[in-house]
Amino acid sequence: MRTLLLTPGPLTTTDEVRAAMNRDWGSRDEEFVTMSERVRARLASLYGYERSHVAVPVQGSGTFGVEAALQTTVPRDAHLLVAINGAYGRRIVTIAERYGRRVSKIDVGDEAALDPAAIAHALANDPSITDVAVVYVETTCGVLNPLAEIASVVHRAGKRLFVDAMSGFGSLPLAGLQFTTLVASSNKGLESAPGLAFALIDRAHLERCERNATSLALDLFAQWRGFERDGQWRFTPPVQIVAALDKALDLLEREGGQAARQKRYETNCATLIAGLQQLGYASLLDPAIQAPIIVTVRAPTEAWYEFNLFYDTLGIEGVRIYPGKTTAAASFRVGCIGAVDARDMQRAVDAIGRTTNRLRQSHAATA
Amino acid sequence: MRTLLLTPGPLTTTDEVRAAMNRDWGSRDEEFVTMSERVRARLASLYGYERSHVAVPVQGSGTFGVEAALQTTVPRDAHLLVAINGAYGRRIVTIAERYGRRVSKIDVGDEAALDPAAIAHALANDPSITDVAVVYVETTCGVLNPLAEIASVVHRAGKRLFVDAMSGFGSLPLAGLQFTTLVASSNKGLESAPGLAFALIDRAHLERCERNATSLALDLFAQWRGFERDGQWRFTPPVQIVAALDKALDLLEREGGQAARQKRYETNCATLIAGLQQLGYASLLDPAIQAPIIVTVRAPTEAWYEFNLFYDTLGIEGVRIYPGKTTAAASFRVGCIGAVDARDMQRAVDAIGRTTNRLRQSHAATA
Ligand SMILES: Cc1ncc(COP(=O)(O)O)c(C=O)c1O
Ligand SMILES: Cc1ncc(COP(=O)(O)O)c(C=O)c1O
Repeated sequence: MRTLLLTPGPLTTTDEVRAAMNRDWGSRDEEFVTMSERVRARLASLYGYERSHVAVPVQGSGTFGVEAALQTTVPRDAHLLVAINGAYGRRIVTIAERYGRRVSKIDVGDEAALDPAAIAHALANDPSITDVAVVYVETTCGVLNPLAEIASVVHRAGKRLFVDAMSGFGSLPLAGLQFTTLVASSNKGLESAPGLAFALIDRAHLERCERNATSLALDLFAQWRGFERDGQWRFTPPVQIVAALDKALDLLEREGGQAARQKRYETNCATLIAGLQQLGYASLLDPAIQAPIIVTVRAPTEAWYEFNLFYDTLGIEGVRIYPGKTTAAASFRVGCIGAVDARDMQRAVDAIGRTTNRLRQSHAATA
Repeated sequence: MRTLLLTPGPLTTTDEVRAAMNRDWGSRDEEFVTMSERVRARLASLYGYERSHVAVPVQGSGTFGVEAALQTTVPRDAHLLVAINGAYGRRIVTIAERYGRRVSKIDVGDEAALDPAAIAHALANDPSITDVAVVYVETTCGVLNPLAEIASVVHRAGKRLFVDAMSGFGSLPLAGLQFTTLVASSNKGLESAPGLAFALIDRAHLERCERNATSLALDLFAQWRGFERDGQWRFTPPVQIVAALDKALDLLEREGGQAARQKRYETNCATLIAGLQQLGYASLLDPAIQAPIIVTVRAPTEAWYEFNLFYDTLGIEGVRIYPGKTTAAASFRVGCIGAVDARDMQRAVDAIGRTTNRLRQSHAATA
């Protein structure tokens, strides 16, 4: 029985992606240099940004990418407005403050979408703001933010936009937007192995970012210059993880690109929500702002329910879910992304149904 | 024909290590949490530091580990003396200065070993120094520094010691030393895949390091607290790379531990140097300070030699070497580490011989 990782990453990958890791490469091998260049080019062109932006990968997890891109592309004298609706927006604030950036915030709570008008208002009210940061899909509850509207508001105000697009990149629309910096990672919508993040950065802006970063390892200006110089990574690259991503990009193409993947995730999400509803489980979000990425489910209020027990019992069925992250309501989360389809989601729903019955009955028996 | 990566990492790994990556894990799966704990425990106990020190892994390459450990464990008001004999010592200076630490230097040039007496002298002359940093094996030329003597000098002076042990960890002696922080990575003497670094940090000192780091992602105090709290990584772990390291630690044990691996690398190194000598190639270093890790070879001064051509032609034979890194002399480097043995080294020597003849002849023919 195949284990289903219904988690926001690491997630279920394909056999092909994992098989691509079964080789060694020297970091200056022509084959590996070519592969790194190809991956960079494909990341930049996936949504058509190959002329305006450059793709700069960096070793580590998504947070490493956010921190690297933030300190490199949000200048030291910037005033950054962070529009927040969850933990990943709050994390941007934490990082910016650690690097001494001036930060202002709008926080709409974890279960609402960001409001472009409120951002426009804040920008009109405080002309000292130079940069705006938002999260595309706030994985905390699974909210899809209206990124196109936000991007045009920020662009019209003449400010730079920083986007954490971690869990939407590869599977949700991102073409034709005005942004300065957009960050994502290998192991969510791209369905590859974790260990690599990357940023798409406006080339003209990046050229002015030489002295922004404090960190050496997380300096994306220097990382970019390294690639431009000789195609090589400044520091030892995770060669197998790069190879896995190269293969995962093949598979995305084979599936039919972002639109096809979005359709699969939407079907996954609809199957999950409908199935859970039949079992008596309600999803937390208004369907209008639910991204087809991860669903936050209200936890049962009955006495039999306890997350760790539920998680472990469901795990016996080969289905891995995720704890809730919002403090607004007791919840658990089920991801719809990764190398899984509607049949897998139905299998997960059935397993959740059996687990619910089992725990309810055994609680009744011992009560 | 198996490709031999005679490079300082990424290097040649075993089929078993790569096979260990052929699975998915959720980051909070009990199996993965247990694996992470096991890897941490084994890294701390490999040289017997499990009582005094804790092992804190971090996503990324070796430099990420050095930067994370430096900013976390060298306090903001420290005065750091860096004893330098190559590029990795200089990199410590760069990192420390970027984070605003006060730095003093002793530099002995790239082809000499560090001198414990000179360090003792510097410490006696400037009581404001609080921390000393050194590299164990300076991969720039391959020099083995007298770490035991340096550690006792620093300890006697009552200062903290920071060691970059990147290319010696797992294969060279490191037991019974007094140090505060020691950094290494997955992909050198441990013969695993790249993508993970780690530090061994004196537990009592680390407890006082809460507010040292500027970075969020590279804050090893917070990373440690995360593991202590629930056994989980703060940010998405490179699950396959952790699994590879767990398997690589099995293989190190099976080989007979560090001493057995050292013997294999010494035989590799001796085979290489003797073979190259027969071909007319001289190694750059005094044999007394040559670590059995990587050998710097004087480049031929004849007109047929050009590194990229030499590298590519040798590559056709399935042997990958490394460019020289020191400016002191034109050179190339050949690694002795990774899943390779004396027969492989002899194969590399033979390939270097054939390549030399081929290039010399074709140059003579066209001259
Ligand atoms: C929107 C968003 N930003 C940032 C992150 C952090 O990524 P990582 O855990 O890889 O550091 C995540 C992870 O789920 C995310 O969903
Ligand atoms: C002694 C030493 N320190 C640091 C590093 C940097 O490691 P990485 O390239 O993994 O960042 C190396 C790499 O060869 C090294 O040999």
